[in-house]
Amino acid sequence: MAQNIYDDPTFLAGYSRLPRSAEGLAGAPEWPALRALLPDMTGLRVVDLGCGFGWFCRWARDAGATHVLGLDVSEKMLARAKAETQDAAITYERMDLEELNLPKAGFDLAYSSLALHYIEDLGRLFATVHRALVPGAHFVFSIEHPIYMATRRPGWITDAKGRKTWPVDSYQMEGPRRTNWFVEGVLKYHRTLGTTLNLLIRNGFAIRHIEDFGPSETQIAAAPELAEERERPMFLLVAAERDAG
Amino acid sequence: MAQNIYDDPTFLAGYSRLPRSAEGLAGAPEWPALRALLPDMTGLRVVDLGCGFGWFCRWARDAGATHVLGLDVSEKMLARAKAETQDAAITYERMDLEELNLPKAGFDLAYSSLALHYIEDLGRLFATVHRALVPGAHFVFSIEHPIYMATRRPGWITDAKGRKTWPVDSYQMEGPRRTNWFVEGVLKYHRTLGTTLNLLIRNGFAIRHIEDFGPSETQIAAAPELAEERERPMFLLVAAERDAG
Repeated sequence: MAQNIYDDPTFLAGYSRLPRSAEGLAGAPEWPALRALLPDMTGLRVVDLGCGFGWFCRWARDAGATHVLGLDVSEKMLARAKAETQDAAITYERMDLEELNLPKAGFDLAYSSLALHYIEDLGRLFATVHRALVPGAHFVFSIEHPIYMATRRPGWITDAKGRKTWPVDSYQMEGPRRTNWFVEGVLKYHRTLGTTLNLLIRNGFAIRHIEDFGPSETQIAAAPELAEERERPMFLLVAAERDAG
Repeated sequence: MAQNIYDDPTFLAGYSRLPRSAEGLAGAPEWPALRALLPDMTGLRVVDLGCGFGWFCRWARDAGATHVLGLDVSEKMLARAKAETQDAAITYERMDLEELNLPKAGFDLAYSSLALHYIEDLGRLFATVHRALVPGAHFVFSIEHPIYMATRRPGWITDAKGRKTWPVDSYQMEGPRRTNWFVEGVLKYHRTLGTTLNLLIRNGFAIRHIEDFGPSETQIAAAPELAEERERPMFLLVAAERDAG
């Protein structure tokens, strides 16, 4: 089973204070770029892999989706998601994405925000998503960027002039990475960029758009601490389309 | 016009001493991985963008191509390519890839090894290659990896334990990078990974395979100095397929 760090009280307390937890989608700087990759939501049946507090599920309904299934491994996040949702067309289910199981051709859009880097067997998950989507359906997700994930010694290197550099090492050594984020030893899986994209292609997806997310000038003007995100991409955004087969 | 550094005598003398110049394809560690992305060459009409000394052109003919057009901006490299080629089915032409011009649907395969990072207008080049290929034709190329290209201060950072880290900064700031390689101020163009792949997609190519090249264990055993290439990818290998349109 995937590590369920989100049910750790210390982790959850820290995570809940992030702007993306307190303010929802508006608190996530990559959301406008990710939203731009989504199709017209009208009439779509949507599955959200790693739905957390349910912000995207509720947005999807507001944007016209007819049904939204939110899946997450965290009981505590699902409890808050349910408490904050009054909409019979949104269903939340506890699911370990390593063991994802979905009805065949039951969805018109699969979405995932910053969950897939916790998954060890991404090929299995992509195959399951492919089977769960109708032909031509979209799969849009964000994932921690391999440039951000690769190093075994994460942290900015700042020179005498204050210029920041992000370290890259161990890039070809795919596999687990343990980092400290609110708690010690959060477990994630580093994969090269090629591995992630080739797994999509081999599982029947055509790649439609790739974005190494960086904040816009407007975003940096409003939140100057985002400036360092221009030095190295933290997130990879991917839009893919299920083939007709 | 693209910078023609390869006709600089100091640069060319240095470049000519590289294993990939002296030994040809066998001297390029990424060649086995790039070759694995090529289709069956039998009967293909091939264009090589940035053919250098013509090693790939001659290999393509040996592998069954019926005609190979090698293009390069360097007069001196083309002179050596011509001197080392006795094959009427291989044609060399001097061409600035920034102004690439090719007959419509004249080719079944486009190939390029480590030339496209010198190109400022990659969208124009991809559109020209698309027009020059028949539907379903392959486009296989290597390019310097954006992880390798992005920094303004290239060079390994080595810690007290001898561990190497590659610096990434300025990733979102696309555009010219000047580096010292045999001579000072070699001009290349950094683009994010998303920019390169999206330019391909928007110009009518389906992405078939992406590889962040790293040497194999066997290659490192034979040439231990390659070990550092496992820390960060220097080259990006791409296989794409022209659409039917």
